[in-house]
Amino acid sequence: MLPALKRNAIITDVGSVKGSVVQELTQLAVGAGADFVGSHPMAGAEKMGVSAARPDLFKDAICVITPTHDSAARAVEAVKSLWQLVGARSLLMNPELHDELVSRSSHLVHLVAAELASYVLSPAHPKEQALLCANGFRDTTRVASGSPDMWRDIALANRKNLARSLGDFIEDLKRFQVAIEKGEAKPIQEFFERAKQRRDQWQAQPASPSPE
Amino acid sequence: MLPALKRNAIITDVGSVKGSVVQELTQLAVGAGADFVGSHPMAGAEKMGVSAARPDLFKDAICVITPTHDSAARAVEAVKSLWQLVGARSLLMNPELHDELVSRSSHLVHLVAAELASYVLSPAHPKEQALLCANGFRDTTRVASGSPDMWRDIALANRKNLARSLGDFIEDLKRFQVAIEKGEAKPIQEFFERAKQRRDQWQAQPASPSPE
Repeated sequence: MLPALKRNAIITDVGSVKGSVVQELTQLAVGAGADFVGSHPMAGAEKMGVSAARPDLFKDAICVITPTHDSAARAVEAVKSLWQLVGARSLLMNPELHDELVSRSSHLVHLVAAELASYVLSPAHPKEQALLCANGFRDTTRVASGSPDMWRDIALANRKNLARSLGDFIEDLKRFQVAIEKGEAKPIQEFFERAKQRRDQWQAQPASPSPE
Repeated sequence: MLPALKRNAIITDVGSVKGSVVQELTQLAVGAGADFVGSHPMAGAEKMGVSAARPDLFKDAICVITPTHDSAARAVEAVKSLWQLVGARSLLMNPELHDELVSRSSHLVHLVAAELASYVLSPAHPKEQALLCANGFRDTTRVASGSPDMWRDIALANRKNLARSLGDFIEDLKRFQVAIEKGEAKPIQEFFERAKQRRDQWQAQPASPSPE
């Protein structure tokens, strides 16, 4: 874009990782007399292309906007307005905090869903396996149908945060494994209670997305 | 039920684990001159009670029926008819294979969704964490709102199979963790490609449940 860029142009993006993107693009934009402010609308689907477009995709979605200390107030306001115009609710945050939070709420979720789909549907299992996958499996693995190229890039761009989140997650699963191997009812009950309580509380918040 | 049981009565159940249930109830039923044949309709939701009833819950769902070598043909046919009457498609299978298959397609899926909800929404994380949970998180963790009592019982009743499935799953996640720590693009790409391919193929099968 650089050779064609107008002076004072305002640029944003929609990428899922912000740290490296904001750093590199801010420098390039400043060098051209323009401004860059990163965005990450928290909405999407496992489908791609124009035929999967939805006019209400961003309605009531959170859009994270990641200015830095050097961002021009004028540019931040313009990017906020853009997202408000398509119905999103903007949330300002520094790029590093954004990347930490999405490594859990989005990138870990995606990789776990992908591993579930891959493992459960492995050709190594008896042929009836796929027939016993029902609605719970369908919803839990929906995002695994997303673009492999895009998710490879996201995983690599946020790999430090993702490796840490995944490490925590594996440790938790190992604790559960010990509990079922020993047949301990109490920690198993508490595990499922904690999950339900946190999930139900999140779902009840006005900020959480409603079912389509 | 035993004291009230008519001779030649036919009994079934809807439990998610079949091995121990079939063994124990078959003996009790035979002792009373009745027949037991286990069932497991692969349909349900995270909600409970009469107010969550849906007339089409079993429509086109697979219902696993788990006769043993000793089951009376008359009883198996009656249980098959029952499920066909509510719109389900019956699939005969021995109790042991059923328990192995559902430990992956249902019980592992539930426990992973519960761990995701619990980990991502942990109060240990920054307060903005819940705001960055969007549609992907919602669908992937939906089943985590299921009954903790029921899921504790399922996990314990099928613990041998579930511990093994969970062990395989943890090993796969560890391999992915090594790949992102080393920044290896190829195995990461292949991981996401495999997941998408298997998930898309399953979704395209006529047997897979369609979105509500």
